[in-house]
Order: sequence, then C-alpha cells, then structure tokens
Amino acid sequence: MGKKSDTEVKMQEKNIMDYDTVALDDERSELVIIDQTKLPGNIEIIRLKSAEEIWNAIYLLQVRGAPAIGVAAGFGIYLLAKQIKTEDFDTFLAEFQKKKDYLNSARPTAVNLSWALNRMEQVVQKHRERPVKEIVGLLKAEAVEIQNEDIRVCKAIGEYGLSLVKPGDGILTHCNAGQLATSKYGTATAPIYLGQERGYHFRVFADETRPLLQGARLTAFELQSSGVDVTLICDNMSASVMQKGWINAVFVGCDRVAANGDTANKIGTSVVAAVAKHYGVPVYVCAPTSTIDMDTQTGADIHIEERPAEEVTEMWYKERMAPQGVKVYNPAFDVTDHELIAGIVTEYGIARAPYKESLKTIFEKKRRQ
Amino acid sequence: MGKKSDTEVKMQEKNIMDYDTVALDDERSELVIIDQTKLPGNIEIIRLKSAEEIWNAIYLLQVRGAPAIGVAAGFGIYLLAKQIKTEDFDTFLAEFQKKKDYLNSARPTAVNLSWALNRMEQVVQKHRERPVKEIVGLLKAEAVEIQNEDIRVCKAIGEYGLSLVKPGDGILTHCNAGQLATSKYGTATAPIYLGQERGYHFRVFADETRPLLQGARLTAFELQSSGVDVTLICDNMSASVMQKGWINAVFVGCDRVAANGDTANKIGTSVVAAVAKHYGVPVYVCAPTSTIDMDTQTGADIHIEERPAEEVTEMWYKERMAPQGVKVYNPAFDVTDHELIAGIVTEYGIARAPYKESLKTIFEKKRRQ
Repeated sequence: MGKKSDTEVKMQEKNIMDYDTVALDDERSELVIIDQTKLPGNIEIIRLKSAEEIWNAIYLLQVRGAPAIGVAAGFGIYLLAKQIKTEDFDTFLAEFQKKKDYLNSARPTAVNLSWALNRMEQVVQKHRERPVKEIVGLLKAEAVEIQNEDIRVCKAIGEYGLSLVKPGDGILTHCNAGQLATSKYGTATAPIYLGQERGYHFRVFADETRPLLQGARLTAFELQSSGVDVTLICDNMSASVMQKGWINAVFVGCDRVAANGDTANKIGTSVVAAVAKHYGVPVYVCAPTSTIDMDTQTGADIHIEERPAEEVTEMWYKERMAPQGVKVYNPAFDVTDHELIAGIVTEYGIARAPYKESLKTIFEKKRRQ
Repeated sequence: MGKKSDTEVKMQEKNIMDYDTVALDDERSELVIIDQTKLPGNIEIIRLKSAEEIWNAIYLLQVRGAPAIGVAAGFGIYLLAKQIKTEDFDTFLAEFQKKKDYLNSARPTAVNLSWALNRMEQVVQKHRERPVKEIVGLLKAEAVEIQNEDIRVCKAIGEYGLSLVKPGDGILTHCNAGQLATSKYGTATAPIYLGQERGYHFRVFADETRPLLQGARLTAFELQSSGVDVTLICDNMSASVMQKGWINAVFVGCDRVAANGDTANKIGTSVVAAVAKHYGVPVYVCAPTSTIDMDTQTGADIHIEERPAEEVTEMWYKERMAPQGVKVYNPAFDVTDHELIAGIVTEYGIARAPYKESLKTIFEKKRRQ
C-alpha cells in the first residue's frame, strides 16, 4: 500500500501547502500522495509504484476528491504504461487497457476516475501510428496537462470568488472542497487561499460535516496548516455564528449542478444555505464547469446515494453512539434549491439567477475559448 | 456511586417506559434512577442512599434534565432528612441545611436543583412548630408533589401538542426533551408518547444533536424502547427529510423562553427552525411555564454558556477528530428567533405570535388556577 516516505512529517513541522496532494516523481517512476486517511494526526507522504499500490490508494481514500482522483489516475496510468515492455502497439494497447480497467474498478462511481482514464486512452488511440516510446511520452504530457488544468480551473474560481468578499470577512465552508480534494487551491477554499496570499485575513469557520467529519479532519487541518484563521464548529452551530454577524459569505463546493442551478453537494449544504438565507448571508457554490450538468434539468433528477447506518451510529466504527437496531437515514448528499444560491462561481465567471440563462452563457464562453 | 440493581436490564428485554426516570423506594429509603451515562448500551437501575451517592449521581449526569434533577433533589433531600437522628428542631434545621447545601453544590447552575431544594426547605421553615417526625412526613408529601406536578405539566403539554398534529404525521425533534429529562412523558416527546398510547403511528426523526449526541443516545433510545417508529439522522440532514415532505411538525424543548418568544434551547435548535421555515414546516416549542422568563425581554438578554473544545474535537474524549490546537467555537445553546416559532406549547395552552401578549395571557390563566 505504498512505502512510507523517509520522514514522516508532523504538521507542526511543515506546512501542508509545501506538498502537492498528488505529484509525479518521474525519475523514480513513483506517484507521490499525502495519505489522507492519516490526517489530521500526521502528514504522511506515500510513494506508489505498482498497479496494486495505486489501486489501493484510490480505493482506501488515501487520495480523494473528484479532481485529485482524476489527476492521480492520469499520473498512475502513465506510470503503468511506462512499465509495459513492448514495442508492438497492439500488445501495448491491450496491456494499457487491462491496467486502465483495473484502476477504474477502484471507485466505479467516481466520475473523474473514468473521465481521466478515458482521456488518457484517447491519447494512445489517437497516436497509434507512432512508436510506443513516443506514445508514453505523450501520456506523460497529457497527465501533466490534466493536473495543470485542475490548477488553472481552481485558481480562476479563486479569483472570481475573491471578488465577492472583502479583507477581514468571515467565511463559512462545509465539507472539504479544499486543496486536499484537488491539485492546489481547492474550489471552495480557492478564494480563501488566494486571499491569504494577498493578506486578506479572513476569519474562516469550518463545519465539521457529519457523519464522516471531512470538515474537522481535512478542511480545518489544511487551512490551519496554511496559517489561515480557522475555527471549527459543529454543523448545528451555523445559525449561532451567523446570528452573531460573524459570517459575510458561505463558500461550498459541489458534486453536481443542474441546469437550473440546483446543486447536489455533501449532506448539510442545503441546511447551511437555508440558515444563511434567514440571516441574509450569501451562499456561493464553487463549481468547475466539469461539474455542471446541463442535461440534468433540476435537483429532483439527481440521484442521492445513501450510505451505511454505521457512519451515523458509530464513530470510526469503534464506539457505538446510538441504540442497537435503531433506524437511520444517511444520505451522502443533499440538493440545495437554486433560490438559496447567490452565485455559482466557475472558472469562466460567476453565474447569477436565473441560472438557466446564466449557466448557458458560461458554457458559450467556454466553447469560444 | 450507587449499587447496581439486582438485574442489569438489557433494553431488548424490557421497555424503558416500565421504569421511572426517578423514583422513591421509601421502604428501603432509596432513590432509584436509570443511570443515563450507561445508555443506550444498558438500562441500568441504580439505588442511592447516602448524600454522597445522590450528589455523585447528579454531578455525573446519571440523572439529568431540569425537571428530573428537581424531582431527584426533592426525593434526595427527603431521604437525607429522614436519616437525621434528633427531635430538636434547631438541630434538625441545621443538619437539613448542611445536606441541602451539599446537594446543591452538585450542579450549581442547574436552576431546578436549587428551586426544588428551596421549596423543600420552605416546608421545614413553615412547619417549625411541629414535631420533627411530622416535618419529615410533610417533606415526603412535598417531594411526591414536585414529581406529580412534573408529570401533570408534561401530560398537559402533550395534550395541547397532540392537537397540533394528525395520526401518521412525521415529527422531527432535536436533543432530548424526553421522558429521561422528566418524570414521565417529557416535554417535546409528550405529544409523541400520548399519540403512541392512542395509536397515532407517528414517524419520528431524531437529530443526533452534536456535540454530546443526546438525540442519538437518549431520544432515539427512549422512543425506540417505547415502540415509537423513530429514525436517527445527523443534524445536517434536516433539510433532506423536510424537502422530501417527511416532516409535518417540529417539536423541541427549551431551556429558557424570553417574554417576546425568543427561545434558548440546545445548540442547533435555531438551525432546525430556519430550515423548517424555508420548507414551510411549523416549529413548536414545548415549554413548562417554569421555563418562561417574563423578566427576560428578548433572546439577546440570554447568556449562552460555551463548553470545552474537546466536546467537538474528541468523541467521548477517546478518539481525536480534529487537528491539534485548532480553534473551536462550542456554544451549548442557541436562541431561536420568535418569528421562526409557530407556537409555544405550555401546560396552560398554546401561545401564538405575538408572544408578548399571548405569554401574558398564559400567565394570567396560571394565576387564576
């Protein structure tokens, strides 16, 4: 499951921003990731070489977050392609597809995983007339481009998001749409990190995000490690901090945005949004255009995955907190009504209501570029 | 800390409604309580005799909830008075006050503790001309009356609350304002239990109530043990269940209601209320008149206690969930704006907006009875 790095780094000693969530060490032919299952206790960097190691890292959520999984898959399949010992294209392609299918099985529902792997295969198919060695070189370039695109998209979202707030503002965020879910900056956290670079001194509040606590374990961790002024709260404290006037804006990520602006994101997002509406705080959804699905008309068309009851009744599967046999409803995501959303921040600008029109305009802008 | 009962009762074997949260076994001179720190794993009945045992049970939250603490204090001080070996009133009074002060120190901020103990001392003071033996008899009668009053108040709240819902309705509740916090019925749960007795078949959703999980550990437990159809959810799932149309009414308890209807209750109550408003679900606060403070003008005048960060960052002080040194904001309660409240259900009827007038009417009714 990947060797440990030479030094197991404690968060106190080094800033997490000094590491990439996912990196390629081409010289050693290794995929280098932060093991997110060890956070927030330790920053442990692991190096992955074999197909099994890479598969495990994705399967075990050592690397997680849609964009980060895509980048890991790109680098991963490149490294595996490099290991194929043949100069015959058909043999190479067959081997490539076997490895691709294997990696893809690690998290079959993660859209970015299959998306990145398909994109990598297209490179192989497109250049089938070239020598295998050249194709491998082109695969590396494509994987690097997937990562660079991710960084550019997050940075652009950060710039647009930053235009919505002022230095010293209080910002609330939910779950982890942070650097740990992407290559750099994150989506919901991108305005925070860019603001941090420019001395904006935001006061950030991170919802812990039950049941799996991504806010407590990951967001509070990465923001704190980066020197951002972050305060952890339970999900049910959002009204308290808004009532006190501590919050000027809410930034959240998203899993899927429908054509009318309805947004599926981590469970609890729509709770924050309803509370924010009552207290007059704007809610901004940070959405790479890759997550906006113009073929989904409204949130009602988005299927919401339900997860095991044990996530609610047991903390880390160790200590039981609820009576045996109690019924549990545990949806992994919820849908936030578009009317609760003040803006959808994409890498091509900010869409405002009515979203049916503004999101179309965003995609027209994307096509033109 | 109290002997264990003869049989340590597993919840599967016996209905928790068969036990009183607090009971007096006068023959054995013992205070009998359900040890709430052992829930939901075990229903463990403990018997308390000495001042130290009673003090510990209150201090360690083996008995908790304002009304239940008041009842335990009444029975407790009666049992201790019974142990005083003298026929001289002044000696008796001095000893009584010593024991009273000792019990009162178990939870100095719990209003019902000092309220019940003062009420018991008034019996002693009022009847100082009578033989000590008679005074002890009057103390027993007063303690029993404190408990009977509690039961009458909860039942009356239940009847008024029941008039607000229909058979088959979905009800959401937050924290534990249940039988375990009172002698019987609870406040927010009283309409649920009365409805259960009458075949209403409610579908109840219990918020787990971070950080201390009173909803998961106590409410889900006592409702499930009583055969109520209860489903446990995380606090951030309230919007999901309301969006699906599963909730017809929200019933919550309260710690203090201001004269304008603003209500302080367990943290997260105002989140549920804001979400309910967005989805058009009425929120009812179940409030014995003893919790309505007409001298507090608005919620802004209510001091909100902040509790230790470890409640948020560590589950049961065992497993750390957040980065070391992270800032935490952990208010124990929040204030729900009166405009989010559809009704305040008291033992003298239901107050509706504008609350300044309707709560006054409730108190006039109380004075007349």
